[in-house]
This record gives sequence, C-alpha cells and structure tokens, in this order.
Amino acid sequence: MTSEDVLTALKSLKIYAATIAHDTTPNAQAWREALLSHSTPFILSKTLAFKPKTPKSDTPVLILVVALESTDTNAAAVNKVMNVKDSRFATPELVKDRLGVAPDDVSPLSITSANASAIRVALDSKLVTSAKPIAFHPSASNKTVFLTSAQLQNYLESTGVEVVTAEFSAATLALVASSEATKASSKKVKEDAKIEGAALIGIDVKKEQDFPNWYRQVLTKGDILDYYDVSGCYIMKPGSYHIWETIQKFFDGEIKKLGVENAYFPMFVSSKALEKEKDHVEGFAPEVAWVTRAGSSDLEEPIAIRPTSETVMYPYYAKWIRSHRDLPLKINQWNSVVRWEFKHPQPFLRTREFLWQEGHTAFLTEKEAMEEVYTILDLYRQIYEDLLAVPVIKGIKSEKEKFAGGLKTTTVEGFIPTTGRGIQGGTSHCLGQNFSKMFGITVEDPKFNGEGEKPKLHVWQNSWGITTRTIGVMIMTHGDDKGLVFPPRVANTQVIVIPCGINAKVTDDDRNAVEYRISRIVSDLCAVGVRAKSDMRDLHSPGYKFNHWELRGVPLRIEFGPGDMKKSQVLSVRRDNGVKTPIALSNVEIEVPKLLETIQSDMFIKAKTVFDSRIKQITEWEKFVPALDSKNVVLVPWCERDDCEDNIKERSSRQPDDTAVDEKAPSMGAKSLCIPFDQPEGIVKGKMKCVACNQDASVWCLFGRSY
Amino acid sequence: MTSEDVLTALKSLKIYAATIAHDTTPNAQAWREALLSHSTPFILSKTLAFKPKTPKSDTPVLILVVALESTDTNAAAVNKVMNVKDSRFATPELVKDRLGVAPDDVSPLSITSANASAIRVALDSKLVTSAKPIAFHPSASNKTVFLTSAQLQNYLESTGVEVVTAEFSAATLALVASSEATKASSKKVKEDAKIEGAALIGIDVKKEQDFPNWYRQVLTKGDILDYYDVSGCYIMKPGSYHIWETIQKFFDGEIKKLGVENAYFPMFVSSKALEKEKDHVEGFAPEVAWVTRAGSSDLEEPIAIRPTSETVMYPYYAKWIRSHRDLPLKINQWNSVVRWEFKHPQPFLRTREFLWQEGHTAFLTEKEAMEEVYTILDLYRQIYEDLLAVPVIKGIKSEKEKFAGGLKTTTVEGFIPTTGRGIQGGTSHCLGQNFSKMFGITVEDPKFNGEGEKPKLHVWQNSWGITTRTIGVMIMTHGDDKGLVFPPRVANTQVIVIPCGINAKVTDDDRNAVEYRISRIVSDLCAVGVRAKSDMRDLHSPGYKFNHWELRGVPLRIEFGPGDMKKSQVLSVRRDNGVKTPIALSNVEIEVPKLLETIQSDMFIKAKTVFDSRIKQITEWEKFVPALDSKNVVLVPWCERDDCEDNIKERSSRQPDDTAVDEKAPSMGAKSLCIPFDQPEGIVKGKMKCVACNQDASVWCLFGRSY
Repeated sequence: MTSEDVLTALKSLKIYAATIAHDTTPNAQAWREALLSHSTPFILSKTLAFKPKTPKSDTPVLILVVALESTDTNAAAVNKVMNVKDSRFATPELVKDRLGVAPDDVSPLSITSANASAIRVALDSKLVTSAKPIAFHPSASNKTVFLTSAQLQNYLESTGVEVVTAEFSAATLALVASSEATKASSKKVKEDAKIEGAALIGIDVKKEQDFPNWYRQVLTKGDILDYYDVSGCYIMKPGSYHIWETIQKFFDGEIKKLGVENAYFPMFVSSKALEKEKDHVEGFAPEVAWVTRAGSSDLEEPIAIRPTSETVMYPYYAKWIRSHRDLPLKINQWNSVVRWEFKHPQPFLRTREFLWQEGHTAFLTEKEAMEEVYTILDLYRQIYEDLLAVPVIKGIKSEKEKFAGGLKTTTVEGFIPTTGRGIQGGTSHCLGQNFSKMFGITVEDPKFNGEGEKPKLHVWQNSWGITTRTIGVMIMTHGDDKGLVFPPRVANTQVIVIPCGINAKVTDDDRNAVEYRISRIVSDLCAVGVRAKSDMRDLHSPGYKFNHWELRGVPLRIEFGPGDMKKSQVLSVRRDNGVKTPIALSNVEIEVPKLLETIQSDMFIKAKTVFDSRIKQITEWEKFVPALDSKNVVLVPWCERDDCEDNIKERSSRQPDDTAVDEKAPSMGAKSLCIPFDQPEGIVKGKMKCVACNQDASVWCLFGRSY
Repeated sequence: MTSEDVLTALKSLKIYAATIAHDTTPNAQAWREALLSHSTPFILSKTLAFKPKTPKSDTPVLILVVALESTDTNAAAVNKVMNVKDSRFATPELVKDRLGVAPDDVSPLSITSANASAIRVALDSKLVTSAKPIAFHPSASNKTVFLTSAQLQNYLESTGVEVVTAEFSAATLALVASSEATKASSKKVKEDAKIEGAALIGIDVKKEQDFPNWYRQVLTKGDILDYYDVSGCYIMKPGSYHIWETIQKFFDGEIKKLGVENAYFPMFVSSKALEKEKDHVEGFAPEVAWVTRAGSSDLEEPIAIRPTSETVMYPYYAKWIRSHRDLPLKINQWNSVVRWEFKHPQPFLRTREFLWQEGHTAFLTEKEAMEEVYTILDLYRQIYEDLLAVPVIKGIKSEKEKFAGGLKTTTVEGFIPTTGRGIQGGTSHCLGQNFSKMFGITVEDPKFNGEGEKPKLHVWQNSWGITTRTIGVMIMTHGDDKGLVFPPRVANTQVIVIPCGINAKVTDDDRNAVEYRISRIVSDLCAVGVRAKSDMRDLHSPGYKFNHWELRGVPLRIEFGPGDMKKSQVLSVRRDNGVKTPIALSNVEIEVPKLLETIQSDMFIKAKTVFDSRIKQITEWEKFVPALDSKNVVLVPWCERDDCEDNIKERSSRQPDDTAVDEKAPSMGAKSLCIPFDQPEGIVKGKMKCVACNQDASVWCLFGRSY
C-alpha cells in the first residue's frame, strides 16, 4: 500500500501520529538529517527483511526484524529468536511480492491484514520499552511517521501478524525470560519421555509425554508411512494403504447396495467453474493449488487442482438431469484432492494431498436427501467403530462449522485422548438447493397438474466424504509405547507365528518338526480366512522378532517351540493387552478367529470407555476451560449463536503465560465439535441457559479444542 | 533472438541476403522512406500476430500472418484461412512470450525451431508469387533484410513451422485451390457418412465413413463419457468407469498373488527429484504440468505433477532397500498421472490426466526381473483378450520406442481396423540398473565370500503400467453404427429384459402376468450371477428401448410379451451380431450365461480375424506404403537400426498431394510397433535383408502408422 494508505489505516485505528515529508532518504544518516528540523525528540527505527530456510515446496514466510536503528541485529540472532534456520536477507523480489514495496521502503507499517499471514515479526525489546516516539517510514523513504511503542503494537495487532518480542543482545542472543522458561520446562519433559533402554528398532519416547515425536516414530518405525520431500505430502506404505483398501471395500460395497455408482471426474477445474458458488469458493480459495505452466509454456489461464468436486461435477449434473425420471442421481468417486494448507501439516490428519471418497447425489425432495445423509453418516460410524475400533459421536455441525455453501453438515466426531482434542472424522452434507440454484439443476414438477408450462423444481443435493484421516485417528487412539496396535479387522497381518526355544541343544529333527508344524499352523489359519504368516528368519532372536511385530501392530502373536510341541499347544500373546493364553494345537483354527474378534471388541470398548470418561457434561462457564485443560471435551447447554461461538473460542484460548506441555497445542480456543444427535436430556426453552452467554440454550453441544 | 542471431541463422542455411540498417521505423510509411536509398527494387512485407479463441486450458497457438504490406488481411480472413475461431490481435505479452520480440518487431524471421511448435503461419499467396525481393525486419525495426519468396520459404521450412498458403482476397477469402479441393472431397464423404433416418437418440454417422465423429457420438450418446471444460480432460461416467473397476479387480487380484502390495505416493514431485535421471526427464519434461501457486501465494519453487512415478518412488527405494533380504520389493499403485500433451487429445486414447496402475519392483538379479516383466505382460494380454475381447500382439519395443531411461520395454500392441493404425496397449519395462545407479539403490552381494567389505550390487528394477486407454481401444474395436458393443465380461448390464407386444388389446391381467414374469426372469438371472435388469418404462415404445440399450452396448436383449408367455419362451437378441434365438423359460438361467460366454468368445474371434487379416507380411519396400495406405500394419524383416527406423518413418509419410479421407490421420510415417515374440520364421543372418535399407535383417518387426 502507498504511504497515504498507511496513514489512512492508522487513522481508522484511531492512531493519531505526527507525519512529515522530506527528501528520499537512502540510509540512516540521511534520514536522521532529514528529521533534524522536527522539534520533538525521536529515535530512528530500522526494519530488515529475512527469509529463513524453507522447504522448497513451502511458501516462504518473511521475517521482519523491527528494531531500533542502534540495536545490533544479525541473521544468527534472527534464527535463534524466531526458532528458524539459515535466515538470510530476503531478496528484493520476495519483499516486493509480500509487502508491495522495495526493501529500503519496508517498515512494520507495510504489514496489513491481507499480507500478515505470510509474515512474522521479531520486535526489538528495546523498541518496545522506548519512551521516545519512534520514526518509521510509512512504506516510502520520503516520509516519516512517529509512533509510540504502544501505537506500533496496536497497529501490528490490528493486522493479526505474529509478533515475537526479542532481546537482540549481542552477548547472549537470549529470548525474553518467559519464553525461555517455557522452553526449558518443555525440554525437561522431553527428556523424561525418553524410554530407558528402548531397543534400537523400537519407539524411544513415551506416547503420553512426547506425543508428536511418538507419532512420527510409530508411523516410520512401524513401517506404514514415510516422509516426503514435498512438504505436507507423505508416502502411504503398504501397511497403511491396506487399511484404506479395507475401508474402501466395505464402504464401496455398502454404497453400491444403495444404488450409488462410481465415476471419475478430472482433477483439474477451470477457475470459472471453481468460482461459480461464492460461499463455497471463499471456503476453499486460500488453499487451492494452481497449475500455471505445462512443459515450458505458460497456460493462458491458470487451472486449479480440485480441493473437492462440487464445482467440477455440478455443471454436468445440470446437463444430465433433464427430468424427475433422472433422479435420484447417485455418483461417488475415489480420488485424491489437494488443499494447500499453511497450517502445521501432520501425516494422515492434515496433508496437502489426501485420498478420500466423495459422493455427490441429487434428489427430488428434501426428505429423500436427508434420509441418505443419515444413512451415509451411519456407514461412516461403522467404518470407525466396527472396522477401526474407534468410538465416534454422530451429530450436526453448528452454522459456523458447516460445509461452505451447504445447508446442513452431519459429522462423526472422534477424540484423541493423549491431547484431549476433538477431531472431525467424516462429514455427510445436505447441500439443500443452494448449488442446484447456482448451477441450474432443475426438473419439471412431476406433481403439477395445472395448465401451461410445468414449474421448475431445483433438485436437493448431498455430498459426503471420508478420508485417510481415519487411519491417523486409529493409530493415535490405539498405539502404545511399543508401537502400532491394529484392530484385527483392518490388520494386513492378523497373526504372526514365531518359532521359540530353538537353541543349540535342540536337535535338527526337533527343529524341523517345529518348522513343519508352524507352516501347518499358518496354512490352517489361512484356510479359515485368518491373515497369518510366520517369521522364520534365522538372523534374529525371538525377542527381536517380538519387538519387530509389536512395532508393526500385529494383533496376535503365536509362539511355538519344542516345549509347546510336547504339550500340543501354542502360546498366544495379544498385542492390545499383552495377555498370554495357551491354545491347544487342535483348536487353533477355532480359537484364533474367536480371539481376534475378542481383541477387536475389547479394543473398541477400551477406547470408548476413555472417550466417554473425557466428555464432561457441564453447565457453568467456570468449569469450561479447566475441563479443556484437563484434556476433556465438554458437553454444554448452548444458544447456537455465531457470536457466542466466537466468544467461547476467544475466552477459552490459552493465556500468554500458559506454559503448556504440548508445544504444538493450538493457542486458539475451543470450537463447537457437533450437536450430538443423542442429546442427554431435552432442553426446555427458557429453563436452561447457554453456558457462555446466559441467553436461552437450545441444545446440548459438544465443544473442544480440536484438530 | 536478436537480429544478429537471425542473420547468422540465415547464413547457416546458406541464405545470403542483402541487409541494411536504418533508423527505427514505427510504421510502413517510415519504413518505405528509410529504404528509398536502397538501389534494388523491393516490396514491403507485414507480419501480424493473431490469437484464435483457445480453450482456457490450452496453450494458445500464435498465428503469424505474413503478407505483402498491400494485401488486405483481417481477422475474419485469418479465421477462414486457418480454420479457427474468433481470432484477435495477440497481446504484446503473448508475442513477447512466444517470439521474444515486441509486436512491431515481429517478422517471419522471429520464428525458430525452438518456438515453431506453438506458431502457425498464414502465408500470403501474393507474397509467394512475388518476383521482387521482399523487405523484412529481422526481429528489430531498425534493420531490413531482403529475401526472395523462395528464400523465405526455405527459412520457414528449416524451422519446422506449419505454413498455410492463403489467398487473402477481400472478395472471396477463398483458400488456395488445392486445399479447397481436399476440403470439398472430404465434405462429400462426411455427407455420405450420415445415416439416413437415424433415430434422434442414435448415432447419426457411419463408423467407417466418419470415424472421429462416430467415436464422439458413441461415447456421449452411449452415456459413458462426457466432454469437460478443461481441454484434454474427460469425465468417465459410471458406464465406462465400471469397465475400469472390472480391470482393476482382475489385475489387482493377480498381482497380489505375485506378492505385489499396493501403496500410495504423492502426486507432487520436486523438480530436483524429477530431474535426477537425465534421459527419463527428457522424455517427459515437455509434458509436465507445474504448480506454481497456492491460494494467492507463489511457491518458492514450482512443483511438478507426476507424469509417472519412477523419480517419485526411487529415492525412497534407496532408503528402504538395505539388504538383499529386502528384495524383491514389489509395490503398485492405482492413481492418475498428468501428461500435458499438445497433440490432438482423444477420449481414453490420449488424455492429459489418465487413470492407470503403475507397478515398481526391485530384484537382486536380472533373471528374476525379466521373469516378472513377462508375467505382467501376459496379465496385460489377458486384460485385453480375456476381458475386453480385443486381440493384441506381445513383443518388444525398438531402442527408439522404448521407455525413456529403461533397458527393455515389452508391450502388448493393439490395432484399430477403422483407421488401420496400431496402438500401444500396455507396457512392462525392465529398467535394468540404470535407475538404481542414479538413485543409489544397492545391496551387499550375498554371494560374496571374500575378505573385506562386501561389494555393492545395484538392484534390477521393473516398472509396468496399463491405463484407461484400454477402454478406448475396446470401444473402437467392437462398436458399430448402432452404438457401443460391450463384451459380456465387462458390461455393467449384461442382459436387458424388455416387455413387448403389450398393446391396447392386452388385458390388465395379461400385462400384470408379463410384468411379474419379467421380474422373475431378472431375479433368476441375478441369482446365477448375471447382471440383468428390465426396462419397464411406460413412456417409451419397445423400439425406442431397443435403440436405447443397443446404443449403450448391452450384450444381450431379452424380449418377452403375451405371445412368448403362451409359448413359455423368451426371445434373445445378441448385440454383437443381431442373431435372435428363442430360449425356453425354464432354461433361461442355464442358456443365458452360456450365450453370454459365446458372445464373449465370438467377439474376440471376430476381432482377431480382422486383426490377423490386416497384418501384411512383406519383404519388399514397394509394398510397404501401399499396405499402410490400405489400413494395414506390416510385418517386415528389419535391421533394428535407429537411423533406418527414422528413414522408414520419413519414406512412409503421406505426400503433400495426398488427399486422405481421414483428415485426422497423421501426416507422419510409420514407426515400429513391436518386435513380436512370436516370430514368423528364423531370420538367418546374411540371408534376409532389411525391407528398408537392404542391410542384414535381424528380426521380423511390426511397423505401422499408430496412435
């Protein structure tokens, strides 16, 4: 923005500041001289733009160091203060791109709410405590505006930019004290989290004490995911892809019974189609990836990669649906979509490309549409509860949290006990007639019997989707300090048979007999549909193999050796709870499938008990934040108003002096997760008050910090 | 390029032309004056840049009108001459981007072999016939070069740019005579192709006479595909996606038996990874789509969308494969890839995004790798022959045609009889150790028994893929003038039952009885695994329904009415050959599945007979081009040399005076399709000569014009 814009912006914030014009000042000396005529005392500032090392695929964040001209700042200090690596002076192109001005003209006043998200500010603590007005260039070096420290901070706050206050002391480069303290305490926790003597191949931190690190290790050491050189993208290895295939097989079979057919629409969307529905595109635009070049030629117009397919598909629905006889139209696709989020990415939970299915259906009536919404939502519940052994709560989203452009969003909400945060598990939307109006999807009213042309009806539409996030929720729910724990129904290997007790004293004959018997156990189990295999590697000890397969989450281990042979039994060891039970050799094909089903249901019950215990039903605001801080979600009487939801979010965010154990926890507050279908008791209008604003409550609503 | 570059280029082509420098000439008048001092007669040219209307997703082609200054040119004339729509003057940005010069400085000499592919030239016929030297600006308006018409044409030819000679007569805007004649004769054929009295819902052209139009109609009216608003991308509707699901189910089951596991790698590739293998990236780079922007932020470095996943996956193979015990590694993925081709796109056959599977495996030895290559290739043959009833020929690709960066490419080659062109059906590559060397995928030699460190072995790799092109080949092979013809094994609906003979004379009781019996026929067929349904719509006549389902390719129709009821029979009508056979009601569940299998095998035999009859085994060059021109492929003794292949291509291209019936036929010549595994007879070295160059032949090779 121009310097005029800056001054206008200051005025609109009621920041009244002296401003003078002078010759262009190419350096501090010239600037100081230009200001000498000014009668009040002042102090010069400087604003330096740095770029830290950024993964190539990431949009680089610009760091603006805003300091007194006299403060000694340098890249090393910036790295330390901002917790980044290899900062360098930003190129003029990058500065121009982010702030619209040349590096010489940059000032904190170049930051606006429009560009703030890609900028971080390191604010010199000496500047903060300065008593004198500070001189800044308002985006041009031929003007100066004098701001007090408080005025500057007000301005920065108005833009929403992240500000870190820093002591640029050449001697220590220390962070300000409070921040340092947080870091030290967090470091201590991480040291406690280290598991003593953890096997080299195993997880070396505890889930409860260093959850982010645990999650990374459990995925990579458990051999189901690898990190990738494009940020926010991950490799799904066979171990996790198999779970997705299991979910696909179940869900695909169920929707085909409902008359849904699969199709494939292109991954590319023209900007014209993408922008057709206004609310919808506003919801997705900031995250859309654009293809602008093919080979070495620029495309005449950039093409978007679908973030979802409403606007890809509905122009064609308008063409295909000609009569009420074409209804219902029920199409699904299994594909990947791209949402280039700038938030912290996390494997499975938040990735820039993810796999999902998206169903898009059209009906003549609202009633039919809503019936399908609920049917699909229950299939999503079944995926979580019956396949993944993960409990969820079915409910409806608040107006604020519903799908952009839709009418009603129903959801299955999950819960990650270790962080106490809710997580959206899958959503089934009734889009109402909003999209059919935008895209002109109409049929003639079949019930119209009057004269003249039949009136047009806009169809009722649904869309519904579930993603590979399912896998992340499952892993976070069941995994333990030894690694992954897979529910039997989705485990690629359900049973691993390991030879034991084969030492130097064992004769070759006995060894052969054990090996033969093991191969029979495996083939007998496979014959009854159990996914079993053996680990006959000579290279490794039984103990090593136990760790190896525990890490990978195999639900049941069977140990078998010469001693077992004599007793005609095997020893089964459950992954979920470590319980060891001998099973008669003759009963293996009967007992093992039963045991797997028991494990499946025990895992669900265990997870459900935890989730239930973490839903705090409360009616007083005083208990709201403490409940969240104790890693719960809360079920509260609520008025369903948007501004009350905003207010709850604000009032439940962490305070600046909060030294949270989980550094990655969001500083933002709680949001509504869902209004559960299963309401604890009827809310009588006028009798029960909203937990936050004391107006009449209309529902019980689940609130929580969330992913 | 600069004007110096232009003059150098002319010299290198041995085009010696007078050149003079003068003041910059902003218009024709100034130019004429600047040249007055020049002693020889000359005539001024003008070069105008137009851009026709272009689908937003396409790279726009620039049209350069090169004319005498006095010729009356305008956009309407350009549209007509170049067969495009809505041409306008190109923006200065576009001209600069394509030619590197400002519009005022443009001349035909701005065209180079590097930019020629995105340019078309409309050459004024008056200029062509000009006896005087013609004045051109060599990419700058302060210089003039004088060229004869022949010199100019030589220059243009050297760049490879497309040149259309045109009469810009204000009166007629007619094309030059020869071009006009071609068009007229082609128009006549198209009129013949119209099917007299074709039902409104049906295909209204004949397959043999207007194949491109027939193909478009059969896809859209057959309800399996729709055109999309991003060029080169298409919507696979349930009718075609079901075929893909059938292929997936078969192939996925087979490769899992071979120990292949599915995984999912990201669709994005960093440029660093993409460019790691040089030959490979050269093969794909011109077609790579680049994401450069997310939301409103430019990415620091563009990210490619995978055109294939070798370079996506192999850096991780290097990490995962640590020991010979990690081998073989066999991973497959079902995904979509993007190749932004600039050739004429065609649904299923050549699309910018397409669905496929790509298998990537690693072995310790070449022997194991090659075994898998052949096993997979035979699965591809089975997909074509056993599922799609499409004959293919298995063989190996020539060095010129093999996969970029690979060692050996095996292929199943198909054939489209209507155009007489070959088509690559699916490829299974042995990559050798090339990629493992580039990406450092090594294991220690397990056989090494010497002292010291074990030597490293580079693994042997394969990659193999088959795409949705399969569906296009199938449709082109079997479809007829009535629409699609699906082989029963891949048809979503195998049997359609249609009530017949229900007219005003039929009693309600009889009508109800027919309807009830039809519902039983359908349920009985479904019970024995036949995908059957009925069409009970009141709205339409049986005749309309016959057309409707014939268009959609349903393999078998069953007609049933009051008359059939009396005779306790149904009437079956085969889609493939129209044969009608009554079947006793009591035998329907037995006879229909048998009949479907007969249809499947008859369709294959029919297609195979045609293909076999179109493979001409010849040994004399004189018969080569005539055989191609009669819509055959040729099996010839060949020397396997690259330059001989180039030579064959050149010698078999169409001549300029060739007025081909199929306008879309490639003007390029034949290429090698494959060296069939099944060689007609041993070639004894020295005995048999290459069909083209008369050197010793080493193999029988299949050549043809191809897709």
